[in-house]
Amino acid sequence: MPIAEFWYEFASTYSYPAAMRVAALAEARGVVLAWRPFLLGPIFAAQGWRDSPFNIYPAKGRYMWRDLERICDTLGLPLKRPEPFPQNGLLAARAALALDDDRRADFSRKVFSAEFGEGLPIADRATIAGLLAQAGLDPREVLGRAESDANKALLRAEGARAVELGIIGAPCLVTEDGEIFWGNDRLEQGLDWAAGRR
Amino acid sequence: MPIAEFWYEFASTYSYPAAMRVAALAEARGVVLAWRPFLLGPIFAAQGWRDSPFNIYPAKGRYMWRDLERICDTLGLPLKRPEPFPQNGLLAARAALALDDDRRADFSRKVFSAEFGEGLPIADRATIAGLLAQAGLDPREVLGRAESDANKALLRAEGARAVELGIIGAPCLVTEDGEIFWGNDRLEQGLDWAAGRR
Repeated sequence: MPIAEFWYEFASTYSYPAAMRVAALAEARGVVLAWRPFLLGPIFAAQGWRDSPFNIYPAKGRYMWRDLERICDTLGLPLKRPEPFPQNGLLAARAALALDDDRRADFSRKVFSAEFGEGLPIADRATIAGLLAQAGLDPREVLGRAESDANKALLRAEGARAVELGIIGAPCLVTEDGEIFWGNDRLEQGLDWAAGRR
Repeated sequence: MPIAEFWYEFASTYSYPAAMRVAALAEARGVVLAWRPFLLGPIFAAQGWRDSPFNIYPAKGRYMWRDLERICDTLGLPLKRPEPFPQNGLLAARAALALDDDRRADFSRKVFSAEFGEGLPIADRATIAGLLAQAGLDPREVLGRAESDANKALLRAEGARAVELGIIGAPCLVTEDGEIFWGNDRLEQGLDWAAGRR
């Protein structure tokens, strides 16, 4: 079966609806998904941005929040803006990366729902521990692995791989032949490509 | 019939496929289109950009050109990158604005096809005059009106209106209730909204 990589960042607003709908879209096309959490911070910093571009450029931020509202309305997803925005997604990304595939997808959806559906602070250790527990996992054990030197190094390597692939934002779908499809609104196109329907 | 405004900039790559397909999409939904050429330069300058963000951020530029290639392939549109990029779209925008609605749409598509389909320099007066002639218009007469003080002021006013609406890029569809849909990939969604199908 064809494989597509789903690259996402927990601080990224458009990664929220994408994460909530990508699994069903992939399954419908017979595409296996690899969930790859990463951090956009280093990529943005390389462009000279020390904050979300949605904060640096307020008009862009206003557009994005209204656009996200429309998208969530259409999908029937709740939307509550977390404060501050963006949330630091480091701990969530480390925890997600420390899980195997199925648990990673499930936990990641829980993080996005908490962050953008309920406005909860996912930068807080207590939030992440609570979500791990909800997922039926042992928070202490998972966070222990999440914060191991090996896992920290793995997350940095994922970031380097994202740059190498040419990823410039999140979410992105990357196909086996190296095509990148950026944006929640490109999931269908990227998965069609992955499935060989071009 | 519902009206939607199609805001576009001749220097904008994604405005090319959008301009080539928006009329048929609008007609299929019973939406009347108002073609509104404007200049992104002042909007970008307000964000501190003196060049296209696709040049300022090379990774973003690489992504965009590949993405545009895929889009044009799918639509059966030729694609040839104009040099330099971006082209200065001032004269084209002034000329388009000086035309009535039907002629504006037809001329605008001709400009985009020349620029991104053939890679022609639309910043050159000779190119624009040739395209006006191809459209069955008198280049001298149209360029005279295009460069009148009144028309120049009108184009500036259009730019101010774009900022007021919250437009941050091109192309955009703006509905009668003030919703903005940014991007070639949002034409369907914006026109559905305009037609009352939310």
